[in-house]
Amino acid sequence: MTNLTRRNLLAGTAGATVAAVLRFDTSVKAATPPAGRQAPGWYRYKIGTIEITVATDGVARFKMAEDHVTNIKLDAVNAALAEVFMEKDMMTTPYNPIAVNTGSKLAVIDTGTGDSNYKKSGGVGGQFVTNLSAAGIDRTAVDTVIISHYHGDHINGLLMDDNSLSYPKAEILVPAIEHTFWMDDGEMGRASPGRMQSNFKNVRRVFNLEVMKRVKTYEWDKEVLPGVIAQGTPGHTPGHTSFVIASGGNSVYVQSDVTHVPFLFARHPDWHAFYDQDGAKAEATRRKVYDMLVVEKLRVQGFHYPFPSLAHIEKYGTGYREIPVIWNPTI
Amino acid sequence: MTNLTRRNLLAGTAGATVAAVLRFDTSVKAATPPAGRQAPGWYRYKIGTIEITVATDGVARFKMAEDHVTNIKLDAVNAALAEVFMEKDMMTTPYNPIAVNTGSKLAVIDTGTGDSNYKKSGGVGGQFVTNLSAAGIDRTAVDTVIISHYHGDHINGLLMDDNSLSYPKAEILVPAIEHTFWMDDGEMGRASPGRMQSNFKNVRRVFNLEVMKRVKTYEWDKEVLPGVIAQGTPGHTPGHTSFVIASGGNSVYVQSDVTHVPFLFARHPDWHAFYDQDGAKAEATRRKVYDMLVVEKLRVQGFHYPFPSLAHIEKYGTGYREIPVIWNPTI
Repeated sequence: MTNLTRRNLLAGTAGATVAAVLRFDTSVKAATPPAGRQAPGWYRYKIGTIEITVATDGVARFKMAEDHVTNIKLDAVNAALAEVFMEKDMMTTPYNPIAVNTGSKLAVIDTGTGDSNYKKSGGVGGQFVTNLSAAGIDRTAVDTVIISHYHGDHINGLLMDDNSLSYPKAEILVPAIEHTFWMDDGEMGRASPGRMQSNFKNVRRVFNLEVMKRVKTYEWDKEVLPGVIAQGTPGHTPGHTSFVIASGGNSVYVQSDVTHVPFLFARHPDWHAFYDQDGAKAEATRRKVYDMLVVEKLRVQGFHYPFPSLAHIEKYGTGYREIPVIWNPTI
Repeated sequence: MTNLTRRNLLAGTAGATVAAVLRFDTSVKAATPPAGRQAPGWYRYKIGTIEITVATDGVARFKMAEDHVTNIKLDAVNAALAEVFMEKDMMTTPYNPIAVNTGSKLAVIDTGTGDSNYKKSGGVGGQFVTNLSAAGIDRTAVDTVIISHYHGDHINGLLMDDNSLSYPKAEILVPAIEHTFWMDDGEMGRASPGRMQSNFKNVRRVFNLEVMKRVKTYEWDKEVLPGVIAQGTPGHTPGHTSFVIASGGNSVYVQSDVTHVPFLFARHPDWHAFYDQDGAKAEATRRKVYDMLVVEKLRVQGFHYPFPSLAHIEKYGTGYREIPVIWNPTI
């Protein structure tokens, strides 16, 4: 076997160099031009008789602020990014809502960054309804929307670019505690400027619309759908909710934002993301949930996990690490 | 937060139990029936100007033989499977060939288990040409097929169920050393009965066909395509070949079967898979390649990696571990 360093390979250890051939490339074109498009990002699995479809809304990529992790220096965050071969100072955040067909109900849980973000992001985000459609689920057929919490990447997809409803026939179910908090003028008055104020404004932009009169609140520890139990996992927001989907002796834990991206916040449950409204409470919830996932060997479906966002959890160092479930070519 | 054990959740901690609701389920059906189909498994990325499309051929699932790993007891293999939450005694083997569009050539590297396996496996395998087509690549447009080695899951897809060529317009490029070995009657005569004999027979079933007169051999350490260098990585078979794809200062290592499934054989490079013809040589190659992948931080595209089979490699315990690349919603 010849020397395997990339330097040698790029230089061309034998025969024509890559560079020489790439010059050749510019004059001769394949009969088939490059396709230039990505696969529609969706993936399907069953929990007993319940069919779950993950459809990616895409990602956001941005330069991190110094306080992206509020209780940790950016240097440590960069070291964690380097461990998973990700670029320094840059954050890639996947958004992965799901559709749940229980047999009697066709629901979506969370809605992504919204149709309006498709153009805004140059097509990198705002893909949810498009990918749902590729998966054979028309947004007009959805009869229930369940919201986990009131951050923009979970609620903005309730609306199309023209402010019409993305799921025009659907009941919209929201966590009672979450709704009360964000719609309370006293809470808004006491909120700090910046991110918290703009969250309040965004919530009201969406939920004060006339078409949102259909919103109904749900309580924790009850079924929001047949086989889908809402579980309070507060800290990230006051009414932040996760879901257990169970059928036929099988189950999956839909964690919503118990962790943000796992490669930072499952590995380091003590790190408080900028997005965690109450960092200490979010951390306590995170540890409790992740200890449960480990003990119960329960799969987790994570909104900010890389698509298709389905994984088992192992203990790892002082935290946890995800083991992605192997892509199943059938369902 | 209420008690998070799965037992409590399945029993229904509050309100209706899951079981009760599932009874309800049988009488009321959603307007939208379950879709019941999986996403076509394909994924695309660029290396400089070269477009790579991973299209899964599917998987095989089977009960492992005692000697699936020839130098390790099945108990240890089962312990490794448990670590990644996989079923005892059962093997899941993904098959993931790729298409490479260099701008001047549209090639596939390896061909999967073949069209005839689609029916045989109940649609779990033999998906490659179907998923390629979903990705916008018609098999009749492919102008080059490159074979890494002569095991059935890499060559059987050269043929459709009726023994016609899967890629009727394509030149077929095969590793010179590999071709010489498997087509040598002396080697076949000396081969042990069982797996080796049936491999010889399968190679001849395919390559003795009249339509295979088009086969051309390629040499190691040369470009088989613009930007694609063939590199000898023997041990798995005598002529086993990997590929470096490089363009625009970017590159990926197409490892073929340097490891079989990474959750066993990257983590345990000293384990010799039943499929490794020369276990010691395969191990030496594996260590050399994986040390290079770590040092060069080079991404690996692995035929038997879980779809989409693209990962970075870190050192882990006494071996290595894959870190899947985050699904990119655009290319």
